[in-house]
Amino acid sequence: MADGAEREAKKIIIDTDPGIDDAMAIFVALQSPEVQVIGITTIYGNVYTTLATRNALHLLEVAGRTDIPVAEGSHVTITKGTKLRIADFVHGVDGLGNQNFPPPKGKPIEQSAAAFLVEQASLYPGKVTVVALGPLTNIALATQLDPAFAKNIGQIILLGGAFAVNGNVNPAAEANIFGDPDAADMVFTCGADILAMGINVTHQVVLTDADRETLAMSNGKFAQYLCKILDVYFSYHHDAYSTKGVYLHDPAVLVAAVNPSLFTYMEGVVRVQTNGITRGLTILYNKQKRFGEVTEWCDKPTVKVAVTVDAPTVLKLVMERLIES
Amino acid sequence: MADGAEREAKKIIIDTDPGIDDAMAIFVALQSPEVQVIGITTIYGNVYTTLATRNALHLLEVAGRTDIPVAEGSHVTITKGTKLRIADFVHGVDGLGNQNFPPPKGKPIEQSAAAFLVEQASLYPGKVTVVALGPLTNIALATQLDPAFAKNIGQIILLGGAFAVNGNVNPAAEANIFGDPDAADMVFTCGADILAMGINVTHQVVLTDADRETLAMSNGKFAQYLCKILDVYFSYHHDAYSTKGVYLHDPAVLVAAVNPSLFTYMEGVVRVQTNGITRGLTILYNKQKRFGEVTEWCDKPTVKVAVTVDAPTVLKLVMERLIES
Repeated sequence: MADGAEREAKKIIIDTDPGIDDAMAIFVALQSPEVQVIGITTIYGNVYTTLATRNALHLLEVAGRTDIPVAEGSHVTITKGTKLRIADFVHGVDGLGNQNFPPPKGKPIEQSAAAFLVEQASLYPGKVTVVALGPLTNIALATQLDPAFAKNIGQIILLGGAFAVNGNVNPAAEANIFGDPDAADMVFTCGADILAMGINVTHQVVLTDADRETLAMSNGKFAQYLCKILDVYFSYHHDAYSTKGVYLHDPAVLVAAVNPSLFTYMEGVVRVQTNGITRGLTILYNKQKRFGEVTEWCDKPTVKVAVTVDAPTVLKLVMERLIES
Repeated sequence: MADGAEREAKKIIIDTDPGIDDAMAIFVALQSPEVQVIGITTIYGNVYTTLATRNALHLLEVAGRTDIPVAEGSHVTITKGTKLRIADFVHGVDGLGNQNFPPPKGKPIEQSAAAFLVEQASLYPGKVTVVALGPLTNIALATQLDPAFAKNIGQIILLGGAFAVNGNVNPAAEANIFGDPDAADMVFTCGADILAMGINVTHQVVLTDADRETLAMSNGKFAQYLCKILDVYFSYHHDAYSTKGVYLHDPAVLVAAVNPSLFTYMEGVVRVQTNGITRGLTILYNKQKRFGEVTEWCDKPTVKVAVTVDAPTVLKLVMERLIES
């Protein structure tokens, strides 16, 4: 990577719960000159936070990028006492395809994820993008820790929500928002520049069996690594969706940081249902109707919600970056 | 109408809160040989229940059909104590375009709406269709009054829900479901043959200014009557949606009883959120994913939800029936 490109690269912090597709997103980020990963923060979701931290350190060691700091995030939801939903049935009990990798040599930094996010946003006001791939607890904590965080952070690009489609935890809710609905509602209404990508978009970005073959045939070290851990993820998709491919949720969201022009967006207020049978549901107000009555969507900041994706080009970019190494 | 047609006509009971588009739906029903209106039951919604009963009696007198019984429905939601939301700002304070019509001569029957529904369903098992145009309190009460009601009733065709689109009370909820979410959830899961039509479909059936002109130029008594009351409804739509037309919610649902082939449907379990900021929201589980965990949609009866409408043909049918008289 040329120094020039490095200097102009978009500073990103990946907030993540690795996770098989998280691993893929992290590798794509490390291979993309358009972005510079200045840190990884960890969160529960696909695995518990402790394991997410271990996996983040492990993945950076695989990549030879132990220069990137890892800050451990919250072990609990923002409203204490909620039972965590851990998706180990999607990613394996170790979060990385049941491969029994050796423990990492490195350690997380002393700072918490929220403190690290606040510090970096304040060091580079308007210049840092958070790519949030798990429940939004750390981001919500950052807004609580520093009222200026929403203003200081450049953009928050997040995987979350099921806009006008069924969820993936239940018919109402997508997993990351379901993981901490209170945190999600705080983040959606915090006033930061937010781009939300729901499963209505990420379900269009599919890695097929044939693509996996292409990765396996390549010499890329990231491609080789991923082929080892992808089996569990393929099995889950086959059982749950009767498909022979897997959804590239996290890589698609990462690509939105690398090349935003591959997506279209609409803008509106998003609120999250925080209790009841549709807990974790996201509702975007599209402004087509002027409501006579005051609603919970009134006087809240708008966010961008992804609507379409150029899926073939996203997939091509992901494949190229993984094979390149 | 020929006796033969009368004998084969589908027996319907219209559960209604008239309401300008309710008036139109009632008139279309009375003009349609495919259906025989065996009763009208009343409910709050566009107006309070007392006024809904008065308006139903008035509309039958306008039509010269005082032979049809009117049974007054519930004045309160099924979970007592909920403040009613009355949409007089859509239909006028009298529910019929602020026309100050004289009081009707007739009276409702002694039976309650729920008792009448139960009785008719049990008199003609599998033969009676309820066309439900308001909040679903009466239908829910009927299922409570008689555990066999869900089996005895032929079909319930209801206007309710906003499937994969914003609501019309707020971004989450459609007015009829919002009016009594607990009743709606009971009805959706009661096991009856249910066809739900949400505003995602009825917003496609629009009566334009030009159509109103056509009604006004005709000699039809129903067309003439409706032209008197439509002004308020047009004004509301112009203010709320910036359109020069009005949505034919209730007539579209009535037409689904007259000619079901003008619509397509999907089948699945529908649940209603009953509290929080998305109170009144309807979520249809489309079965695309097999959830590993137990969800609130598991082991519940499915219903049909309208997906598409042949809007030009629905409008043509409505116009013809209103002009014919």
